Amino acid sequence: MKNISIFGTGAVGRTLGTKLVQLGHRVMMGSRTKDNEKAMEWADKNGQNALYGNFEDAAEFSNIIINCTKGAITLEVFELAGINKLKNKIILDLSNPLDFSNGMPPSLYPQWSNTYSLGEAIQDKLPESKVVKSLNMVNCEVMADATLCGGSASMFICGNDDEAKKEIASILNEFGWTKIIDLGDIKGARGLESLLPIWVRLWSTTGNGHIAFDIVGL
Amino acid sequence: MKNISIFGTGAVGRTLGTKLVQLGHRVMMGSRTKDNEKAMEWADKNGQNALYGNFEDAAEFSNIIINCTKGAITLEVFELAGINKLKNKIILDLSNPLDFSNGMPPSLYPQWSNTYSLGEAIQDKLPESKVVKSLNMVNCEVMADATLCGGSASMFICGNDDEAKKEIASILNEFGWTKIIDLGDIKGARGLESLLPIWVRLWSTTGNGHIAFDIVGL
Repeated sequence: MKNISIFGTGAVGRTLGTKLVQLGHRVMMGSRTKDNEKAMEWADKNGQNALYGNFEDAAEFSNIIINCTKGAITLEVFELAGINKLKNKIILDLSNPLDFSNGMPPSLYPQWSNTYSLGEAIQDKLPESKVVKSLNMVNCEVMADATLCGGSASMFICGNDDEAKKEIASILNEFGWTKIIDLGDIKGARGLESLLPIWVRLWSTTGNGHIAFDIVGL
Repeated sequence: MKNISIFGTGAVGRTLGTKLVQLGHRVMMGSRTKDNEKAMEWADKNGQNALYGNFEDAAEFSNIIINCTKGAITLEVFELAGINKLKNKIILDLSNPLDFSNGMPPSLYPQWSNTYSLGEAIQDKLPESKVVKSLNMVNCEVMADATLCGGSASMFICGNDDEAKKEIASILNEFGWTKIIDLGDIKGARGLESLLPIWVRLWSTTGNGHIAFDIVGL
């Protein structure tokens, strides 16, 4: 059993939180306020290992924080949680810098795309934390259960700290991901986030969100 | 047997040209000058069905043109070939807007990324041609022979003209691609070109260029 914190009370946070509790972990869901209704309802449904609090509480609760907030507000959320409180901690970032301001389909925010990424921006904001990027290129149900699309897909991971990547890889294994491809340091987040345009296009043309990427030939 | 033109005399053009001749097609390789050494050498090696000429000659030779030029010069090449000569013709575009000006790894040229793409820029420049984007996310040996990475990978295709996509899909089949995913109109090129950052990262971390993407769960 691990203590794991989740930032964000949306579908991604709730789905992963529920799965982690089912796997036997203790999970705290963090949000802007201590009495977030969605977090309270989620905790109520998921028993004594499902806790909630504000971002600061969640930052303190565990050495592993999963960032499930929307890309647009992610950096602000880390400010609220407290940069100092996150020192030496592992941040699994699965957010995407999706810009919906030009309508559908979303593009990526220019400041976090191509020559930079949201994963790198988080690492730059939290230089003493260990940011690991993964899972962002599948929908949240598939994140929590790789077998939903057959279990043979690849999962990408990147980050500057090898021990942190190992720790996150063990959680990915618990989610059913067995073929984990390490893309090196956090700059690899540019590649991981660049999968969103084709994911969105696949989803809109096929209507199927339970899809994942596999790399053939490795 | 089809007549097929290739723009570009680099490794991509030569590899695809050779494969197409081996498959029984007549191929003209086009370049800036009529007496390009690489084109002449390639034709010399590949028998009577391997022809060469300048871009204008190649534009006239066939109703199917495969653009194998570097992304940075692609739009200029179409100018040289003659926009009018390309009317109603099928352009298979497999170029990538790779910007090496900031060193390795390359990023994408900002003007052709995220909210636009090189595939769309070609279609906008040649409004009366039928631009189809495909193959750009694998290396040229894999383009010409999908079995090099096992033959189970997906190949993406997009473009505004369904008949043109069918014609190109039949060539993809000849190259061994059997799982072709149609991503709709040419705007899908944003997704296809966005695969380059992760392809480059995979290649640089694994040293293996004989890789391809598969979509699991469709």
